[in-house]
Amino acid sequence: MTNEERYERGLQTLQKMAGEEDVRMIEGMGEFHPDFGHMMIAFGFGDIYSRSAFDLKQREVITLTSLITQGATEQLPFHLHAALNVGMSPEEILELVMHCAAYAGFPKACGALTVVKRVFDERNIVPNTK
Amino acid sequence: MTNEERYERGLQTLQKMAGEEDVRMIEGMGEFHPDFGHMMIAFGFGDIYSRSAFDLKQREVITLTSLITQGATEQLPFHLHAALNVGMSPEEILELVMHCAAYAGFPKACGALTVVKRVFDERNIVPNTK
Amino acid sequence: MTNEERYERGLQTLQKMAGEEDVRMIEGMGEFHPDFGHMMIAFGFGDIYSRSAFDLKQREVITLTSLITQGATEQLPFHLHAALNVGMSPEEILELVMHCAAYAGFPKACGALTVVKRVFDERNIVPNTK
Amino acid sequence: MTNEERYERGLQTLQKMAGEEDVRMIEGMGEFHPDFGHMMIAFGFGDIYSRSAFDLKQREVITLTSLITQGATEQLPFHLHAALNVGMSPEEILELVMHCAAYAGFPKACGALTVVKRVFDERNIVPNTK
Amino acid sequence: MTNEERYERGLQTLQKMAGEEDVRMIEGMGEFHPDFGHMMIAFGFGDIYSRSAFDLKQREVITLTSLITQGATEQLPFHLHAALNVGMSPEEILELVMHCAAYAGFPKACGALTVVKRVFDERNIVPNTK
Amino acid sequence: MTNEERYERGLQTLQKMAGEEDVRMIEGMGEFHPDFGHMMIAFGFGDIYSRSAFDLKQREVITLTSLITQGATEQLPFHLHAALNVGMSPEEILELVMHCAAYAGFPKACGALTVVKRVFDERNIVPNTK
Repeated sequence: MTNEERYERGLQTLQKMAGEEDVRMIEGMGEFHPDFGHMMIAFGFGDIYSRSAFDLKQREVITLTSLITQGATEQLPFHLHAALNVGMSPEEILELVMHCAAYAGFPKACGALTVVKRVFDERNIVPNTK
Repeated sequence: MTNEERYERGLQTLQKMAGEEDVRMIEGMGEFHPDFGHMMIAFGFGDIYSRSAFDLKQREVITLTSLITQGATEQLPFHLHAALNVGMSPEEILELVMHCAAYAGFPKACGALTVVKRVFDERNIVPNTK
Repeated sequence: MTNEERYERGLQTLQKMAGEEDVRMIEGMGEFHPDFGHMMIAFGFGDIYSRSAFDLKQREVITLTSLITQGATEQLPFHLHAALNVGMSPEEILELVMHCAAYAGFPKACGALTVVKRVFDERNIVPNTK
Repeated sequence: MTNEERYERGLQTLQKMAGEEDVRMIEGMGEFHPDFGHMMIAFGFGDIYSRSAFDLKQREVITLTSLITQGATEQLPFHLHAALNVGMSPEEILELVMHCAAYAGFPKACGALTVVKRVFDERNIVPNTK
Repeated sequence: MTNEERYERGLQTLQKMAGEEDVRMIEGMGEFHPDFGHMMIAFGFGDIYSRSAFDLKQREVITLTSLITQGATEQLPFHLHAALNVGMSPEEILELVMHCAAYAGFPKACGALTVVKRVFDERNIVPNTK
Repeated sequence: MTNEERYERGLQTLQKMAGEEDVRMIEGMGEFHPDFGHMMIAFGFGDIYSRSAFDLKQREVITLTSLITQGATEQLPFHLHAALNVGMSPEEILELVMHCAAYAGFPKACGALTVVKRVFDERNIVPNTK
């Protein structure tokens, strides 16, 4: 596989995960810092996300958990949108935040929940929490 | 003790710590994600904060230190207000930030100090720093 | 639900996840620090792990990711054993570590892989990595 | 105040906190890396710990919380001994770990508890946990 | 060396690193919390940055790496400006972010890159990335 | 560039950095988890370390800083050896740890210094610290 093929494969995976605006945002990072942009798409979305051992939904479960655990709230909107796009339900996202409270601590979970609420509001999602 | 009693106990402790607006904010999280809201109040404020082994002031010393160390600046305003409400002096808060500089590093302490200043300004607090 | 029922529910879940030795280890923490032990079982394994929204396998995916991301390698053996006990395959564990390399950085992934290898060796697992 | 006076002040504070063996360990770091050793004693124990705004017991509450939150388990024994030397009770240490579970997550609290048990065993401490 | 001399030395180093506005910002922290401000200048910029073992450019490489690794994005603008002021090229900053992606994970690198872009825009820097 | 060429390039860079035993250790990880091993060498040592924008010594300054900041002490020996192999002096390593104390906190710096001392002892290095 050549670097061009890795990039192409990554771009296809990215387009399955992200809406137009978020693909555009990633491409914008590549315009500012081309080698970084290539690495994100060829390595991140190509070499990692495109592997068949997990489907994209399972990968987003892992990604969201890692982001919440490290307090990377600013990276959450992209991956919350992606998670919803590849089939994670709003209720599963809420459950994931709850499980993370025990492992990463309540501050990380509360910080995440604020962002989750904002993304759900943008998408007019009303989670079924009875 | 039933879950309702744990929740009730937590709510009472929360009301000793937080002003109306902050209680309302916690309740708002519970409206969005009821099980998470229950857990925060029954477990966090009920099972943990309500234990008599430490008073609320000592608990806020621990909470603020943990928040500063993990860089959870967005969770600081709630607990800075709570700390002041339960008897921590402004000067003790400043001293805590200073001690944390050595243990959590200067970036975490500087990030915290910016939030402390904002909260003190909101409450018209002029710390006695000679 | 009373605290006793929460504890009982947690203990049953724990026994589905952990082998005898690991259950014994958790109980040992409870002998040293009874309130902590109660909290771990009633809250951690009872209130969180026992919720039906995710099965135990999905919960271990989240737990392992959080542990790897925060570099909590000493807590990994318990949850690697649990993950294998509740149906995660060795190959899924290896894939999870690989995905985490991109999100938590290579040092965290390498540190985790060393522990994974040790646990696989203990259980005579030879992963199918072709 | 000169650097020599800062160092002298730090050394006196260190000797109030640490047993002979632990003072010796700090001095050993200073033999390997003299400027680092000077900084630890003059700045850490002199400029920070010697300030009168908190007593040494309150400072150890903050230090232990910061260490547990960042997962710095290897630095815990020195400060658990120091905490006990300056008047923190074993029961207060156990309570601190419990409070930290909610803020820093259970993995950090469990990792800390293992070290606490080891230090209590060394000192033949049997905490009063009913 | 007295504390006044340490402070004076730190102030001189700070003025080599930071523009007027950023020096003013640091002084503002000292007006709010004088002992903290003294510590930052006498210890941070005096005792540490002023040591001759590394030049200021090498020190900013280390500082930027530490800030990115701990996700302290809010402290980045000061040190990105300082790095550029003491001779780090825009291309070296971009390369540092890229190297950090592998060690601190992509979320930290992406978070940093957003701030780098903002600082470069403020200074009308167009990096030479071919 | 194909994946084989990326791997080959990475292996050559790795061999410039690491002694036989450490190269063997990396290869051992690749025997246990071939795709991870390929990624580490092709991406880590090939795509990142082999870029000409920084020399290997500058890269090790960044790597060591990131490892110390995240408390990844178990990954330090490999990179301390690598740093010394590619031209970092023992005194520069000690200075780096000292700078990190201010940014990552003293616990991380003390934890690192213990490992540095062990590696220097293994190599019979007596740093010139007068």
